[in-house]
Amino acid sequence: MAEQKQKVTDEQLKQYLPDLPSGPLDIYRKQASFDWRRMKLAYDNLNTLKLKNDIWKFMESNPLFKHTEATRVLDDERHITTKRMYTYYNEKFLGFEKIIEDPQAFQAESEALFMFDSSFAVKVSLTFRMFSNAIQGNGQSHHYHLLEAAEKAKIGGCFALTEVSHGSNAKGMRTTATYLPEKRQFVMHSPDFEAAKFWVGSLGKCATHAIVYAMLVSKGKNHGLHTFVVPIRDPTTLKPYPGVIVGDIGEKIGLNGVDNGFVMFNNYHLPKEAALDKLGGVDDNGDYKTPFRDPSKRFGAALGILSGGRVHITAISTYYLQKAIVIAIRYSAVRKQFGPENAAEETPVLEYQQQQIRLFPYLAAVYAMKIFSVWLSTVHINMTIKNLSGSSDNSAAALGMELHALSSAVKPLFGWTSRDGIQNCREACGGHGYLKASAIGDLRNDNDANCTYEGENSLLLQQTSNWLLNVWARRDKLSPEDSPLGSLNFLQDADALLKEKCPWTTTEEFMEPKNLIHTYKWLTAYMLKSTAETVHKLRSQGKDNFTAKNESQALQAVTLSVVYGENYVLNHFYKTALEQEDVNCRQALLNLVSLYGAFLLEKHLGTLYIGGYLWGAAGAGLRAALLAGCARLRGDALALVDSLAPPDFCLKSILGAADGQAYKHIQSSVMTYPGAMSRPEWWRDVVYWESYAPSKL
Amino acid sequence: MAEQKQKVTDEQLKQYLPDLPSGPLDIYRKQASFDWRRMKLAYDNLNTLKLKNDIWKFMESNPLFKHTEATRVLDDERHITTKRMYTYYNEKFLGFEKIIEDPQAFQAESEALFMFDSSFAVKVSLTFRMFSNAIQGNGQSHHYHLLEAAEKAKIGGCFALTEVSHGSNAKGMRTTATYLPEKRQFVMHSPDFEAAKFWVGSLGKCATHAIVYAMLVSKGKNHGLHTFVVPIRDPTTLKPYPGVIVGDIGEKIGLNGVDNGFVMFNNYHLPKEAALDKLGGVDDNGDYKTPFRDPSKRFGAALGILSGGRVHITAISTYYLQKAIVIAIRYSAVRKQFGPENAAEETPVLEYQQQQIRLFPYLAAVYAMKIFSVWLSTVHINMTIKNLSGSSDNSAAALGMELHALSSAVKPLFGWTSRDGIQNCREACGGHGYLKASAIGDLRNDNDANCTYEGENSLLLQQTSNWLLNVWARRDKLSPEDSPLGSLNFLQDADALLKEKCPWTTTEEFMEPKNLIHTYKWLTAYMLKSTAETVHKLRSQGKDNFTAKNESQALQAVTLSVVYGENYVLNHFYKTALEQEDVNCRQALLNLVSLYGAFLLEKHLGTLYIGGYLWGAAGAGLRAALLAGCARLRGDALALVDSLAPPDFCLKSILGAADGQAYKHIQSSVMTYPGAMSRPEWWRDVVYWESYAPSKL
Ligand SMILES: Cc1cc2nc3c(=O)[nH]c(=O)nc-3n(C[C@H](O)[C@H](O)[C@H](O)COP(=O)(O)OP(=O)(O)OC[C@H]3O[C@@H](n4cnc5c(N)ncnc54)[C@H](O)[C@@H]3O)c2cc1C
Ligand SMILES: Cc1cc2nc3c(=O)[nH]c(=O)nc-3n(C[C@H](O)[C@H](O)[C@H](O)COP(=O)(O)OP(=O)(O)OC[C@H]3O[C@@H](n4cnc5c(N)ncnc54)[C@H](O)[C@@H]3O)c2cc1C
Repeated sequence: MAEQKQKVTDEQLKQYLPDLPSGPLDIYRKQASFDWRRMKLAYDNLNTLKLKNDIWKFMESNPLFKHTEATRVLDDERHITTKRMYTYYNEKFLGFEKIIEDPQAFQAESEALFMFDSSFAVKVSLTFRMFSNAIQGNGQSHHYHLLEAAEKAKIGGCFALTEVSHGSNAKGMRTTATYLPEKRQFVMHSPDFEAAKFWVGSLGKCATHAIVYAMLVSKGKNHGLHTFVVPIRDPTTLKPYPGVIVGDIGEKIGLNGVDNGFVMFNNYHLPKEAALDKLGGVDDNGDYKTPFRDPSKRFGAALGILSGGRVHITAISTYYLQKAIVIAIRYSAVRKQFGPENAAEETPVLEYQQQQIRLFPYLAAVYAMKIFSVWLSTVHINMTIKNLSGSSDNSAAALGMELHALSSAVKPLFGWTSRDGIQNCREACGGHGYLKASAIGDLRNDNDANCTYEGENSLLLQQTSNWLLNVWARRDKLSPEDSPLGSLNFLQDADALLKEKCPWTTTEEFMEPKNLIHTYKWLTAYMLKSTAETVHKLRSQGKDNFTAKNESQALQAVTLSVVYGENYVLNHFYKTALEQEDVNCRQALLNLVSLYGAFLLEKHLGTLYIGGYLWGAAGAGLRAALLAGCARLRGDALALVDSLAPPDFCLKSILGAADGQAYKHIQSSVMTYPGAMSRPEWWRDVVYWESYAPSKL
Repeated sequence: MAEQKQKVTDEQLKQYLPDLPSGPLDIYRKQASFDWRRMKLAYDNLNTLKLKNDIWKFMESNPLFKHTEATRVLDDERHITTKRMYTYYNEKFLGFEKIIEDPQAFQAESEALFMFDSSFAVKVSLTFRMFSNAIQGNGQSHHYHLLEAAEKAKIGGCFALTEVSHGSNAKGMRTTATYLPEKRQFVMHSPDFEAAKFWVGSLGKCATHAIVYAMLVSKGKNHGLHTFVVPIRDPTTLKPYPGVIVGDIGEKIGLNGVDNGFVMFNNYHLPKEAALDKLGGVDDNGDYKTPFRDPSKRFGAALGILSGGRVHITAISTYYLQKAIVIAIRYSAVRKQFGPENAAEETPVLEYQQQQIRLFPYLAAVYAMKIFSVWLSTVHINMTIKNLSGSSDNSAAALGMELHALSSAVKPLFGWTSRDGIQNCREACGGHGYLKASAIGDLRNDNDANCTYEGENSLLLQQTSNWLLNVWARRDKLSPEDSPLGSLNFLQDADALLKEKCPWTTTEEFMEPKNLIHTYKWLTAYMLKSTAETVHKLRSQGKDNFTAKNESQALQAVTLSVVYGENYVLNHFYKTALEQEDVNCRQALLNLVSLYGAFLLEKHLGTLYIGGYLWGAAGAGLRAALLAGCARLRGDALALVDSLAPPDFCLKSILGAADGQAYKHIQSSVMTYPGAMSRPEWWRDVVYWESYAPSKL
């Protein structure tokens, strides 16, 4: 890939990235210090650019993918999302072989889909990926006919782990699958509504099969959670089978194109082959067999299949913020309000310091996130391919562990960064940002789910901190093999490091990426050390492990995991920036690294002081660096979002179109909204209100 | 009122606050250290309790106010909101006289309405209050027939200030009203769509009249922005008048029961009487007359009428967070997940430290906000009554100024606190919090508007900081009369204060309200001083006032205003807590004061260090106080939300009902959602997808 990057010509880039329409944004575009097309190469390549372009061209030419002003009623939203899914899938833009050729393509396809519509993208991923992944990971050769049927879209899958009363605590699930050796069958049963599978995406209306997690019971013994592939609806009629009570869970805060559903099993009989028992299960007699010696390992491996979801969410959060920041910055460049006294024209709000500090740190963040999530996805795919092909070696376990810890930190970090960034974008657009047609509200509502599914954010962070605390205990014995991704580098010379005091005080010093990165190293090591000390103190007070862990979460373990994630992302961003061939892009990215670093660190000022790294008024220097970093970005901001922006028909925002004609788009949107200009049908209930509320006056 | 409070008996309280249903929440309810009914008296009295009870009883008995599971399409949502408005208004629960008798009743009515539905409450307030207030404030006796017509609901008003391209900068408005002396008429005109009045609540479908802000032009001279009362639609047919192009602006992120609209005037002729010219206007000849010597004062006075809106929003933000925190804490008490090894039952998530720190500081905040906003509303109403009755004296100007500065700080502060608190509530409810029926999403979407309307938050804060900077310049000459509300008390002995260093280090010291309040005094004075210094420095570098102000906003002036607001709210909370008769309520409130103070201060740790107040590891003591304050609240949390909770039919949340039966409510909601259990109409598009997307396989 690196080689290919060097050879990319302007003509090639232009092929997939056409000129942007000239207009009121030109004045900012001209100020950019770099070429917005070339900037794409920080996280894209010609192959991914082409793929996205092909997908978008297809969508744009298809009437099913046309935008309508008014929100559809729930059922219509599900309907069109489903039709879009099949229509898109049918085109087979990205087969397995192409992913092997260029793993980055996986993320590019996902970006193309999410940029258009998140429900649509989620449906595609649930129906055609998650189901098959689970079978590939847990199933055996006699299950492979299901893969083929799914591949041909003759059946549709879904993934049913969560129950009404148990989500995070998977071990508490109460759905049972009891083996009957005389019939070679399992009986699947939900004891009550609280044990109903719930939240299952695509189960509400469409799925014909579900991957169900249930307690495997045989010969009176509960062997823990296992996966089963369970027929739910007849693929030829979409009618549920007897013994299955299935329904839709109704409206959600967002993602309403996805039919999340619930299902209860009423002594539902399944052939023995329903068990996806590669990692463990019963033989015909009902005796339990597993290739693992330690059964808890089996559970871990079975859940490990879920890590792909977490990796994907780091990318999904990024897409949402990416769209929001494009909208807010383009609009801020054309929205003029106030200005110096006696000025001929008002000032674009992008010029105001307060507007900049609300937006620019998130612009920097989105570049960091983009670069990181593309990379993480590639790492994950390469790992999966290795595992599937059986060519994984000893180092695979360490990599799997580190990837688990890292993604468990970064998924929450990105979900929350997008949450806060999108909200800032919303507010920064003033009143018009509150129009549904600004598109920011939906981004917020859809991203919200990222903070919860695939592991509730706060709980995921426990996974990371638990791992880090274990690492800390054996830090003297660590070798590079323990950290193939290098996320533990901050532990190098930790003891000496923690004795350091910050040598920097000036704005310039705090703008230097190297210094910020060094400070982060200190911060990460300090958070780990102090969290370990807190846990230790609580234990030595006689508290049990559960209590000690619980009482060291807030402001300690949770922050530790976040800081560990931030530290890695920042380092990775810096490294990638330095690697850029193009000198202008490199410098622009380094400015973003500086701003992102100062922005992150400023949130931890208190800790830097408490831990003794900062002293006196040095923190003021860091704050000044944050402000100066924002100011420096002013001229580049527009080109930076042009580079991130999807085509207008994907962005679907009246404020963020590439032509900068926000007011014209507001007018046209408002005027075409159904019924906007007509008297309401119910006008009589205004004029003759006394007819239904008899006057007492 | 104070006297009345003393006499309140348990029987009286029970009359309006019936027993809560027994169930899984009992175990927490029993732990409370105080009586949840009596706690109401911290911000309610028997009169307000009765009023709310009467209103809710009426609603509950009326089929129009019944909840439905599925979101209505936009037009239906407007329809039912409008019918509810007239039906409610017709009951005349609260006349002007009753407000004079007990100004707190105004807020109690507003609470009763917002607790049920925010669009409905906003419609009532726009149609029946804002329009009349504007006429009362700006109009003359010949306008009073409109007040009567509005009072009888024969006409419906709205308030049209914002234009498409101008909102915050009102001086930039471009709608004109040109006087024609020969006809004694004004010609109202919108030069283009960018000058269309936009966002006007209730104008989209219903309003017959609008208060329009337009540039008054006479004899070729522009006299600036003036108000006019403008007929929009025929009250007998609801058809727009010729010359008026009026429409609906379509869907918004929230508040979709309110029909926000736009209007353009096409050389629309109005009688001279359309001018609301008490504060300034033209005579029959077109010569300009105003009782103000300084015309900028007229503009200020005309805009001053808007301050009531800001005051109201401090209350509205509080209502939203109030509902959200009730939902999240009740649900956290019944949601069990994980637990100590080998425990018989799982642990309610309310017990986890990380859950507590996400919720309890906002529980404390909501009490502070509630107490403050009730008080602020009373102050504002008393001031308005004084002004209307002409009995206002010299001190009125100072009070008006301080109220403007204070409300301009607290409106953003509360809008943002609710924003962040509601989001925490959403996430703290895990997956089920993402169900629409949890009701938290709508609270977030509705509250979002509070950050923008009645003054974009960041810009409002400029009003406050500008005032404070002026005050700082003349701080040696201040007298108590400059600050009738005492918001400038932090300036007492500021110079000595700013030399102090924090004498506290232990958890207990940082939990003591007096100490937290003293620290806040330091912080407020420090922020003012350092912001003044920054502005001064920028000016001395030769920057003009506009630039110097702009470049001292982020991390300085904006924070200053927020801190000034926080300082006042915290002090007011403390004072009110100390005043409580009931010793148990008093102690519980003091615990909340402590937690609220620690929570606020912790966010400013960096500044406390940079300014030299904190040193060494003292900040760790403050953080420990925050955690200890959360832990201390555990037993009281449920009773605290019971006291805040509206009846279930208002809360409309499957997670937050008073009986604690979250899973039963989830089941019943899911099962009654229209179509939840049926096969979709479009099932053929799943089974026969190849019919519309021909297979290429
Ligand atoms: C849009 C959406 C789609 C989904 N799709 C699917 C799907 O397709 N298939 C599927 O199986 N599931 C799905 N889910 C369910 C999802 O995976 C779970 O909701 C998620 O894992 C969170 O679990 P929970 O709901 O049990 O949260 P809970 O665990 O109930 O969380 C509630 C609160 O308790 C806190 N808490 C819980 N335990 C602890 C502890 N030990 N310490 C501290 N705090 C604690 C949490 O931090 C949180 O604040 C979906 C959910 C959503 C919102
Ligand atoms: C739900 C809703 C209902 C409404 N109802 C009504 C109504 O009934 N009648 C009515 O007349 N209006 C109404 N409005 C309009 C509302 O009052 C305005 O939207 C609001 O005042 C914000 O102004 P704006 O939209 O011009 O924001 P803008 O000023 O355009 O704000 C955009 C961004 O620019 C920034 N900015 C602007 N100037 C500066 C500066 N000098 N320095 C730093 N930053 C700056 C802002 O901080 C913001 O981040 C309503 C709005 C909403 C959302």
